[in-house]
Amino acid sequence: MQFKKVLDEVKIYEAGKPIELVVREYGVDVKDIIKLASNENPYGTSPKVTAKIQELAKNMFMYPDDSMFELKDALAKKFDMESSNIIIGSGSDQILEFAIHAKCDENSKLLMSKTTFAMYEIYGKQTGATIIKTEDDQHNLEQFRKLYKENGADIIFLCLPNNPLGECLDTKEVYKFLEEVSPETLVIVDGAYQEFAAFKDENKKIDAKDIISKFPNVIYLGTFSKAYALGGMRVGYGLANKEIIKNLYKLRPPFNITTLSLAAAIEALKDEDFVSETIKRNFEEMKRYEDYAKTRGFSYIPSYTNFITLKFDDKYISAEVAQSLLKRGIIIRDLTSYGVNAIRITIGRKEQNTRVFEVLDEVLESLN
Amino acid sequence: MQFKKVLDEVKIYEAGKPIELVVREYGVDVKDIIKLASNENPYGTSPKVTAKIQELAKNMFMYPDDSMFELKDALAKKFDMESSNIIIGSGSDQILEFAIHAKCDENSKLLMSKTTFAMYEIYGKQTGATIIKTEDDQHNLEQFRKLYKENGADIIFLCLPNNPLGECLDTKEVYKFLEEVSPETLVIVDGAYQEFAAFKDENKKIDAKDIISKFPNVIYLGTFSKAYALGGMRVGYGLANKEIIKNLYKLRPPFNITTLSLAAAIEALKDEDFVSETIKRNFEEMKRYEDYAKTRGFSYIPSYTNFITLKFDDKYISAEVAQSLLKRGIIIRDLTSYGVNAIRITIGRKEQNTRVFEVLDEVLESLN
Repeated sequence: MQFKKVLDEVKIYEAGKPIELVVREYGVDVKDIIKLASNENPYGTSPKVTAKIQELAKNMFMYPDDSMFELKDALAKKFDMESSNIIIGSGSDQILEFAIHAKCDENSKLLMSKTTFAMYEIYGKQTGATIIKTEDDQHNLEQFRKLYKENGADIIFLCLPNNPLGECLDTKEVYKFLEEVSPETLVIVDGAYQEFAAFKDENKKIDAKDIISKFPNVIYLGTFSKAYALGGMRVGYGLANKEIIKNLYKLRPPFNITTLSLAAAIEALKDEDFVSETIKRNFEEMKRYEDYAKTRGFSYIPSYTNFITLKFDDKYISAEVAQSLLKRGIIIRDLTSYGVNAIRITIGRKEQNTRVFEVLDEVLESLN
Repeated sequence: MQFKKVLDEVKIYEAGKPIELVVREYGVDVKDIIKLASNENPYGTSPKVTAKIQELAKNMFMYPDDSMFELKDALAKKFDMESSNIIIGSGSDQILEFAIHAKCDENSKLLMSKTTFAMYEIYGKQTGATIIKTEDDQHNLEQFRKLYKENGADIIFLCLPNNPLGECLDTKEVYKFLEEVSPETLVIVDGAYQEFAAFKDENKKIDAKDIISKFPNVIYLGTFSKAYALGGMRVGYGLANKEIIKNLYKLRPPFNITTLSLAAAIEALKDEDFVSETIKRNFEEMKRYEDYAKTRGFSYIPSYTNFITLKFDDKYISAEVAQSLLKRGIIIRDLTSYGVNAIRITIGRKEQNTRVFEVLDEVLESLN
């Protein structure tokens, strides 16, 4: 049977190995497995949110409130904007999907950093759009400028801070760049890890209200999957001017958020102390990874997120390191498929990180 | 900002009124509200499933197993097929979205019954495809044949049984029709309410394995939202030959099902007794609606689902009946927007239905 031609170019997304698979494949005891591959919040979901969901579990038979009145209201207060500036998605992923599908076809161009969130390209290819990438792995605004001047773009992606590398542009530089972008180009500012960047360095902080007010062609994306510890519940949001939101709404399927996910997100916004506390601990633990890398003599990218990218240059092969860790029950992300000889490790809890250092010592020793 | 031209024709989906809104607008006490508008399972989620989710609620921070190994395995066993014949969606809605978007553009044609599930048309319009509908409200295969001969179609939709009217074609007739359809036309057999039809009448039962084996251009859709009482958790599935599944997978976003939804669906499949029991009760209670309609002297469509459509002909105006019920705290679905002077009522629990009859008596009296 014939499907749309553009799909010929689309590869099927391969997810990371779930814990169950590692247990099955390598016979590692499930208790010994440490998964630091998906940038989940290693401190788990806030106990208050968990308690709320236990109380509401009996409501699973009921469709969610599709107007999402309460969650939008809470976000509107948090960001000091109107509900009409907000769209909720099944993760901020789904807002990416709406935006790319609402704007692009085979004649469109997407401009992004060479090594950035994989879904920008995947959703882009679903529409047949041309993908244009900078030469540098990390965000380089001079290269964005040059490519934009040469090719134009229907959408520009800025991942602030960037996944999977961890770097973050200064907000001042971003604003300068945005002034040079045509109002017809949609700029997606992906703030999935913004809570971490804003905590570490004021200069990296994006004020969502300010940026979408000054630049009506910007949509800001946020998520409950990282700092808010609800990766499994699939809730993200887009903040933009009403015109953009209205157009993205045309692609939103009804009931795109589950009944329990809506309740969990609303509850998570009430427990900001939990979020601050886990962010603080994240950077205390990250310091240990930096020290470890320095001691071991390989480089890392200073990170504004809840993960760190360790670069092996020509010392080790990242795929081998990742595979050796996996056999010992430690799941991290190898970045070979991104064209980088590096691994990305989610910053875990203290005892998890201690174990990672021990096993990494073993692995690097064995690969020497 | 310019978005894709086809979106100009797309209307934003308006969801039914949530209970909270009725409380706010009409000042009805939340305890007195009866919502029989969305064909949820009125007996609630199986207590076994609820207990499982309470136990797993603490896992909300973790991304789901994106391979969905366990759920696919359970479905494969239930339907006696391979995991590679299965795709899981955020409700069977999302499988519709994948199928329509994978196959259609502005040059495509979609053939469907005049009054059927609204999302067929909405997803169709997102691609710019032409919508072709039969003249009769209820599925009429002669009209499908005629229109297919005249226009062809990229996708044909058969809703078996049909939402929102409740009627169901005989499987024998469906098979005869399928033999006349080109292998290049995708036929979507929407079995969202099949569990109910199969219970009521053997002649309406679709054997998913048999139909996709005999007709490689058929995809069968099922859902956990209705008989399995998980409407709020957004889990549905498509069953088809591997080639179709592979193509739909290209549009599947990663992690399209929440961690708790996956667990709930797996658990729900273990409690088939709960499902059978609620289906049995559904038809006992439906009998009371049929008797009520007969006594009151208006007609209804014999239903193979968990809802019943009451037709008012020129006796009452359905919008007025629905509005009067709403003011008294009873939420049902007015079918005016479908071009039918009728209301659709989900078959509730015994005491809910008794109350509906009382209030409906009052309302009809007042409208006489």
